[in-house]
Amino acid sequence: MTITPAAATHADGREILELISYNRESHDKIDCMPVNELLQQLKPERVNWINVDGLNNQDVIEKIQSHFCLHSLLIDDVLSDQRPKAEEFDDYLFFTMKMLHRIDGTGIYYEQISFVLGKNFLVSFQEKEGDLFDGFRERIRLDLGRVRKRQADYLLYRLIDIIVENYYNVLDKVGDLVEDIEETVYESSTNQTFHRIQKLKKELIFLRKALYPLRDALGKVIKDESEFVHEENLRFYSDVYDHVVHLIDSVDTYRDLTAGLMDAHINAMNTRMNEVMRVLTVISTIFMPLTFIVGVYGMNFHHMPELSWHWGYYGVWGVMATLVIVMLSFFRYKKWF
Amino acid sequence: MTITPAAATHADGREILELISYNRESHDKIDCMPVNELLQQLKPERVNWINVDGLNNQDVIEKIQSHFCLHSLLIDDVLSDQRPKAEEFDDYLFFTMKMLHRIDGTGIYYEQISFVLGKNFLVSFQEKEGDLFDGFRERIRLDLGRVRKRQADYLLYRLIDIIVENYYNVLDKVGDLVEDIEETVYESSTNQTFHRIQKLKKELIFLRKALYPLRDALGKVIKDESEFVHEENLRFYSDVYDHVVHLIDSVDTYRDLTAGLMDAHINAMNTRMNEVMRVLTVISTIFMPLTFIVGVYGMNFHHMPELSWHWGYYGVWGVMATLVIVMLSFFRYKKWF
Amino acid sequence: MTITPAAATHADGREILELISYNRESHDKIDCMPVNELLQQLKPERVNWINVDGLNNQDVIEKIQSHFCLHSLLIDDVLSDQRPKAEEFDDYLFFTMKMLHRIDGTGIYYEQISFVLGKNFLVSFQEKEGDLFDGFRERIRLDLGRVRKRQADYLLYRLIDIIVENYYNVLDKVGDLVEDIEETVYESSTNQTFHRIQKLKKELIFLRKALYPLRDALGKVIKDESEFVHEENLRFYSDVYDHVVHLIDSVDTYRDLTAGLMDAHINAMNTRMNEVMRVLTVISTIFMPLTFIVGVYGMNFHHMPELSWHWGYYGVWGVMATLVIVMLSFFRYKKWF
Amino acid sequence: MTITPAAATHADGREILELISYNRESHDKIDCMPVNELLQQLKPERVNWINVDGLNNQDVIEKIQSHFCLHSLLIDDVLSDQRPKAEEFDDYLFFTMKMLHRIDGTGIYYEQISFVLGKNFLVSFQEKEGDLFDGFRERIRLDLGRVRKRQADYLLYRLIDIIVENYYNVLDKVGDLVEDIEETVYESSTNQTFHRIQKLKKELIFLRKALYPLRDALGKVIKDESEFVHEENLRFYSDVYDHVVHLIDSVDTYRDLTAGLMDAHINAMNTRMNEVMRVLTVISTIFMPLTFIVGVYGMNFHHMPELSWHWGYYGVWGVMATLVIVMLSFFRYKKWF
Amino acid sequence: MTITPAAATHADGREILELISYNRESHDKIDCMPVNELLQQLKPERVNWINVDGLNNQDVIEKIQSHFCLHSLLIDDVLSDQRPKAEEFDDYLFFTMKMLHRIDGTGIYYEQISFVLGKNFLVSFQEKEGDLFDGFRERIRLDLGRVRKRQADYLLYRLIDIIVENYYNVLDKVGDLVEDIEETVYESSTNQTFHRIQKLKKELIFLRKALYPLRDALGKVIKDESEFVHEENLRFYSDVYDHVVHLIDSVDTYRDLTAGLMDAHINAMNTRMNEVMRVLTVISTIFMPLTFIVGVYGMNFHHMPELSWHWGYYGVWGVMATLVIVMLSFFRYKKWF
Repeated sequence: MTITPAAATHADGREILELISYNRESHDKIDCMPVNELLQQLKPERVNWINVDGLNNQDVIEKIQSHFCLHSLLIDDVLSDQRPKAEEFDDYLFFTMKMLHRIDGTGIYYEQISFVLGKNFLVSFQEKEGDLFDGFRERIRLDLGRVRKRQADYLLYRLIDIIVENYYNVLDKVGDLVEDIEETVYESSTNQTFHRIQKLKKELIFLRKALYPLRDALGKVIKDESEFVHEENLRFYSDVYDHVVHLIDSVDTYRDLTAGLMDAHINAMNTRMNEVMRVLTVISTIFMPLTFIVGVYGMNFHHMPELSWHWGYYGVWGVMATLVIVMLSFFRYKKWF
Repeated sequence: MTITPAAATHADGREILELISYNRESHDKIDCMPVNELLQQLKPERVNWINVDGLNNQDVIEKIQSHFCLHSLLIDDVLSDQRPKAEEFDDYLFFTMKMLHRIDGTGIYYEQISFVLGKNFLVSFQEKEGDLFDGFRERIRLDLGRVRKRQADYLLYRLIDIIVENYYNVLDKVGDLVEDIEETVYESSTNQTFHRIQKLKKELIFLRKALYPLRDALGKVIKDESEFVHEENLRFYSDVYDHVVHLIDSVDTYRDLTAGLMDAHINAMNTRMNEVMRVLTVISTIFMPLTFIVGVYGMNFHHMPELSWHWGYYGVWGVMATLVIVMLSFFRYKKWF
Repeated sequence: MTITPAAATHADGREILELISYNRESHDKIDCMPVNELLQQLKPERVNWINVDGLNNQDVIEKIQSHFCLHSLLIDDVLSDQRPKAEEFDDYLFFTMKMLHRIDGTGIYYEQISFVLGKNFLVSFQEKEGDLFDGFRERIRLDLGRVRKRQADYLLYRLIDIIVENYYNVLDKVGDLVEDIEETVYESSTNQTFHRIQKLKKELIFLRKALYPLRDALGKVIKDESEFVHEENLRFYSDVYDHVVHLIDSVDTYRDLTAGLMDAHINAMNTRMNEVMRVLTVISTIFMPLTFIVGVYGMNFHHMPELSWHWGYYGVWGVMATLVIVMLSFFRYKKWF
Repeated sequence: MTITPAAATHADGREILELISYNRESHDKIDCMPVNELLQQLKPERVNWINVDGLNNQDVIEKIQSHFCLHSLLIDDVLSDQRPKAEEFDDYLFFTMKMLHRIDGTGIYYEQISFVLGKNFLVSFQEKEGDLFDGFRERIRLDLGRVRKRQADYLLYRLIDIIVENYYNVLDKVGDLVEDIEETVYESSTNQTFHRIQKLKKELIFLRKALYPLRDALGKVIKDESEFVHEENLRFYSDVYDHVVHLIDSVDTYRDLTAGLMDAHINAMNTRMNEVMRVLTVISTIFMPLTFIVGVYGMNFHHMPELSWHWGYYGVWGVMATLVIVMLSFFRYKKWF
Repeated sequence: MTITPAAATHADGREILELISYNRESHDKIDCMPVNELLQQLKPERVNWINVDGLNNQDVIEKIQSHFCLHSLLIDDVLSDQRPKAEEFDDYLFFTMKMLHRIDGTGIYYEQISFVLGKNFLVSFQEKEGDLFDGFRERIRLDLGRVRKRQADYLLYRLIDIIVENYYNVLDKVGDLVEDIEETVYESSTNQTFHRIQKLKKELIFLRKALYPLRDALGKVIKDESEFVHEENLRFYSDVYDHVVHLIDSVDTYRDLTAGLMDAHINAMNTRMNEVMRVLTVISTIFMPLTFIVGVYGMNFHHMPELSWHWGYYGVWGVMATLVIVMLSFFRYKKWF
């Protein structure tokens, strides 16, 4: 199966904990620090982004939970497989979605990423180490773009946007695959083509399952006008929403195209079957009468006048040649070859 | 059929009646007591959970009905097969759903479970003895988790949650089955594979039928903000709701995958048919001309010059060998084998 | 076609007119009385149920129309084929639906039944004589159940409930049929099985067409909170509504199952086709080479050394036996039999 | 194609213009009058119905447009192919729909008809001469029914009702066709049956396309409670609405039935294919071994002991007869014939 | 693939920038002017239409962005592939859609066109040089129609209308294609017919993808009653909306028809297969028994009485002729030819 959860992080299952805190003036990045100490480093006047990679360390999760007063149901949702959703609590907004990353060949790797957005902090929980945000971390550090000038809600938007941007990459490869298969399916569709179409369909089913609830989750954030998202930033969320809707459109289009590929495959198989049957029928129809004729003159009746005719043998050849010509004309007329 | 209602309880059809009443401080469990006496044991300052296993004892049902002033339609709904639903009455909330339990091999056993939630009581009606709650009863007794600290509405949430949790188990096995079939369908799909796919489809139809109305029922509880569910507990119901939506997503995904399996099965059958036809055609196309040729020289014409040629016999073998080589090349070119 | 309108009433097309009027204290039943006189018998302080069987007598219809001031469109709806609907007029509520009754073998008989519900009267129009209400009339007479204690709206509920109850019977037989076909379709599906599946599909299409608008009509009565239905009785209508939704669920489930049966039938046909083709191919592949070999030694060349070998004949048999064994092994390897 | 726009009106493309004006007391009908003069004849205290047949005369259209101050977009809609719709302007209500008329054999002829409803006038634009309203014009003249007692909105209702009534005729013929095909498809489905089913499907697609937007248009009139439709007449529009919904139900049912017919056709073709293949296989399986056997004794080996046995020839016949019997039993067991 | 983005504009990638400004009295057209100077030419009391062809010149885009204070997200949307949408900002309305233009043979060329509508200006961004507006520019210059008398919102309506008008052209060709294929598919459907049907399906998928969100975007403009569209012009937008809905209807109808074509193609292939199989079976069934019979009398048994009969040879011919007649009658009876 080509849709696989991303591989486990460390062999020793250690968590990776990272704090990036910034405002217009300054920027700090802290990692490799025990969770208790790290939580002391939060500065209320800054945007604090805590990133957790790997969810097996009970202790880290619990400390974060108690520090930010996270609801137990929220922690359940972070730890178990969830459909993308947004949920507003009293002191924070919870957002969970699938992150698709890395494509080797045509395989899709995914993991679940969850966000807790508060007034001046953002906690992100990832199942595995390694994410799509390294370039963005660098942008924060160098103070490129708007991110340092804005609050935590803008940070969340940017992270979601980066993840959604990657969906486009995934989908583009699907598009390439569709065109790729299309070229082979019409001329020489094999069982292997069928396998590729099936794989494609499975990937599209998977993408649909990730995208539809994501659209609803974003729609909820926009419509509910959550107090944790400033009104001026709603337009950004709206833009991601549009991207997701565009992605869904594309997935649906690819589904239709894939259904067309399947039709083409079936048609190719039927066409070949027809061809095989026609060859069989042409061969049978030509040789069965001929074999019958030569069989006739292989009979041992004492009294068979034709056998003693001088030109009998050549006459039979003549009859048979005529027969073959008549039949070939018939098949040509029927357009069988 | 693998989807079967759970087997009958006692051979003698006796009902099982059980009362668990608790609050923060104390916990009582009463069973094997006649219904009249048991109903005397209810304590208004506690949460009283009455569980009825088996619905054949008219008398027990009637006594409970009159004690809690249950509407006659509600009792009808408890006793007959219903689609999952929630309905609010003046003095209680009625909730009915399917409980799937025990899976031997791939069979799904189900029974209907109905709840009546009042201010300080919860009545649960089960069709059969034996349920999924034994571990939870123990947790109540030992005062683990939040349940002893909360009211009857939290108890109802927990029971629904346990049942829904079990849907995941059922669905996981469906998922295993899908992968299992997937492995065999591509290489050697037989009629038996088809049967398994059909069985899978039936199970998914059954799960859909149980889940869709359950989602609506839970949605109704959440949206109507029933007076029997405290606002602080609504979030828990909301969480179960999310689980059910997630389950529905999964069922729909499995349906799509199962449709793909069916396509694969049909493709496998067609491929084999094609292969069979190709073998037939290759054999016929090679041997029909050969048989014709040897037939020619089996004719008894008096005047057949070739027959007396010294190398005639070997010449015929040569001609035939050439013919076979030409044909095999042709088939190779056509990629028929 | 097995879905047939119920047969005509009287050979002479006479209408049957019946008035049942009751309250808590008393009960009267009048029939075989001319329409004018009968309409005099209505008693304002009682519930008056007028039942009309057969809609061909223009005169009766008109008299009833003018007595209750029925809208001309309403009468049109009573007389012509309508989809189930509820419509509120100033002085009454109009409700029309399909009544399915009597099943001989698997045939469904139906007729349209229309109700006009006023403050203290209910008029029911049936196309044919004979209905499902005889047992209920007896219950009214004997004052069983709640009906004598309630108003005309409860009477209407009870009549609708009885009709809907009968839909369950119809659907149960459909369910039996599904299981019945299921048993034969997997082992020996014939053309006759196909006919039965098609018949089943037609019945389900018919039931859908009757049930979907019925749900909407009942929903309208409940949501609009018609002034002709007391609020305390709304719950009863709500209960019938739930039953209809449950029926629709079941019809949809049976549709899915029937689609599965069709797949199974097609699969059975393809399997058999495959089997036939395999037999043909095995036979051809075995005997064509053999026939060729014996043909070779039937040739009349003067110089054919093998012919004079002493063990030549037995040698040919040996070669052929070897060939057969090789081929059978090949087919066994291919799992063709 | 059997769905054709109605044929052109006059060879010389003349328009036909007609004014019917009436109230309770009087009735006038004017035609064959130039458009300018005719527009002078409108009487404000009466209902004025102007009917235009043929839309090629720019001049007539423009004069009517300027007289009633019709919006230019409205005139565009009248002149070009539109989906049925209702649109309210300041001084009038615009309504356009398809009129299906005349069925020869199974062909459907259609034209677009547009209405402009004002306070005391109704303008109807038809593409072609000849409509379905002749009987109704007579009813107006003779003052039958309610029409003379009511306003222009009732007139519009009546015209729409007449057109919708005709949809039923069209659909009834479709129903006849379905039953007709059903009888032939099961026993002897030919390519011609397939053509008929396809034609049927096309007609249903066409009807759907005409009916769905018509329902929406009527729904809009009813819901918006247009000021040009008196509240007392809304119920009539509501009734036509119900008819259209009923028609849509029927079209959908026929679509399902037609899909069933297609299945039956495919099944019939497959069944016949199976039968053909079985005959081929039975013949081959019987005669191939026999031909082999006689081939064996046609060999010219010098040393073949059986040849000189006295009963050899009869023995071979015996062996072959036994073989045939065995094979026929096998086929009978396999239920191949 | 026949659906291709329009070809690149200039070889040197130069942008084309054009300003048309007009009011009732005057009209100016400016092009080939650097962007800075051109932006100076805007006149507040006029309607200013700035058209940008080609989006590669970063500089031009940025200058326009800063001049009109365009949101950065808006510029992103202009530059990247978007689904059609409308979005209202504080100072302008953003509208983006697909422009389909030029059809050579059956190919569809498309590009994205985006509009920014302000109080007195309209900026249009096109991906490529060359559009559908040349005739309309001429109409503005000559002051034909209403456009010079109205504001920028009417200009936008006209541009959208022209683009939508062209969708009709595209769809008409699709309609021609459907009828074209229909004629060939029934009599001699080939693999090439299948390709054409598939191409058709792809075009319809593409059109759907362009039209559905366009409908929503227009609906949003109408429903939100944007402050940049005068209320008197809303009806025009409403008219385009109706056209788009009509187009969607047509696309859906063509999809249904195309599905029918696919059925017809499959049916044609099956019919031909059936025919081929019947020919094979007829030939085999006739010649196999005949070959067997002549084989019998080719055996070399010493004792075969028939061989020495004087009429034996003719008798065999008689038997064989009888057999052929019997079989042909059987096939005729089975309607196999």
